[in-house]
Amino acid sequence: MNRPIASEPLSPEALEAALRAVGPERYHDLHPFHDLLHGGKLTKGQVQAWALNRYVYQAAIPRKDASLMGRCDDRELRREWLHRITDHDGFGEDKGGVERWLILTDGLGLDRDYVVSQEGALPATKFAVEAYVHFVREKPLLEAVASSLTELFAPSIHRQRIAGMLANYDFIDERVVAYFRRRLDQAPKDADFALDYVKRNARTVAEQKGALAALTFKTEVLWAQLDALHHAYVCGAIPPGAFRPE
Amino acid sequence: MNRPIASEPLSPEALEAALRAVGPERYHDLHPFHDLLHGGKLTKGQVQAWALNRYVYQAAIPRKDASLMGRCDDRELRREWLHRITDHDGFGEDKGGVERWLILTDGLGLDRDYVVSQEGALPATKFAVEAYVHFVREKPLLEAVASSLTELFAPSIHRQRIAGMLANYDFIDERVVAYFRRRLDQAPKDADFALDYVKRNARTVAEQKGALAALTFKTEVLWAQLDALHHAYVCGAIPPGAFRPE
Repeated sequence: MNRPIASEPLSPEALEAALRAVGPERYHDLHPFHDLLHGGKLTKGQVQAWALNRYVYQAAIPRKDASLMGRCDDRELRREWLHRITDHDGFGEDKGGVERWLILTDGLGLDRDYVVSQEGALPATKFAVEAYVHFVREKPLLEAVASSLTELFAPSIHRQRIAGMLANYDFIDERVVAYFRRRLDQAPKDADFALDYVKRNARTVAEQKGALAALTFKTEVLWAQLDALHHAYVCGAIPPGAFRPE
Repeated sequence: MNRPIASEPLSPEALEAALRAVGPERYHDLHPFHDLLHGGKLTKGQVQAWALNRYVYQAAIPRKDASLMGRCDDRELRREWLHRITDHDGFGEDKGGVERWLILTDGLGLDRDYVVSQEGALPATKFAVEAYVHFVREKPLLEAVASSLTELFAPSIHRQRIAGMLANYDFIDERVVAYFRRRLDQAPKDADFALDYVKRNARTVAEQKGALAALTFKTEVLWAQLDALHHAYVCGAIPPGAFRPE
C-alpha cells in the first residue's frame, strides 16, 4: 500500500488519489459475504448472525470517536467530530444509529437483550472491533482520523445493501433499513471533512505512509469481521459459545 | 461457562474443577485445523502459514507478561512471573523461545525478516493476539493471571504436535520442534503456579466468575487464530495482503 510514496512527500491531490485507491483493492464490498447478503442468498439465520455481529461494531463507534476526542487538543476538530457520537448515540429526540441498528435486529426477530449483551457475537468480531478502538486511542491523531476514511467507500455499499435486501428478503422492510438510509447522508459529509484534514496535515513521507497504513488497517478490521462471519455461518464452523441460528 | 457458580463461592477445589472443565469444551486442541496439522494433512505452504501466524502470538507473549508485571504490586508474584519473559526472550546463553520459534520458521524455508515483520500475518491473528495483550493490561490482575491457565491444557497438544509433525512431514526435524520440547517442561510448572494463585485469590462469586471468564476468553483468542488460518489456508479465502504460499 505504500508503493505511491518514495522519498518525497506526495502533493495533497496525489495523497487523496493514493487513499482512494485503497478502496478498490481492500474495501469489504469486495468480500464474497456481501454478495451473498445483498443477493438474497442467505437464510434468515445467517442474516441474524450478520446483524448481531455487526452490532458489536456499531456499539463501539461512539467509544472510538470519544477516544479520539479524548486525546485531541484541537477544539475545532473536536467540535467537528462530536456529531459522530450523537449520530450513533442520538441527541434529544433522535435516538441515534445504534438504536436504528437495534430496530434492524428487532426486525430480524432477535432478542434485544441478547444482541446488546454481545454474548453470541463471534470472538473474532470483538477482537477486530477492539483493535479499531485501541488503534484510535494509541496511534497518532492523524492516523486515528485517517482510519475513518473507509467512509469514502461506504455510500455505494449502503445503496447496494438497501436495494438488495429490500428486494431479496421478505423479512426486511423500510423500517429495518433506516440505519443505512441515514448513513447515506452522514458518511459522505464525515468522509469529506476527514479527507480534507488528512490532506492538510499529512505533510511528511512518514505521516503520509501512516495515513495510508491507517486506512489499510481499517479495511482489515472490516474484512476480518466478514471472514469470521463467512467461516462460522457460511462454511458452518461456528466456534464454541457463539450464536447458533435455529 | 458460569454454570458452576450460583450465589455462593466455590471451594478452591471446585473452582479448580470448573477451570479444568473449560479445556475439554473450548481448548484449541479440539479445532479441526490441529487434526490436519498433526495428521500430516497440510502442504508445506499451509504449515508455513501456521508458523508465521503463530509467530505473532509467540512474539507478543513477553509483552503480555511484562504488562502483567507492570501493574503488579506483589513482589513475590513478579519474581515468579519473570521467568516467563526470559523463557521467551532468553537470558544469558539461552536465546529463548521466540528464537526457537524462528528456528522453526527457518526450517520451513521462510525468510526470517519477513516473519519478524509480521507483514504477511493475517489481520485476524494480530487482532486476537493484541486482544490478549490488552486484556492482561486492562483487566483485574487476578483475571490477567487466570487467562494464562490454558497452559493447563498445553502439554498434551505439544506431545501430539511433536510426534505428529515429526512422523508426518519430511521438512520437520528435531531441531525444528525444539520449541515444543522445551514447553513440555515449562508450561506445567507455570500452570501449577497460576492455578494455585487463582485458587487462593478468587474468593468471591464475582472473582470466580471473572477467573472463569478470563480462561474462556483466552480459549477464544487461541480458537480465533485457528479459525482465521483455516478460512484463509484450508478454505482458500486468503485476505488481501496476507501471505500466499508459493
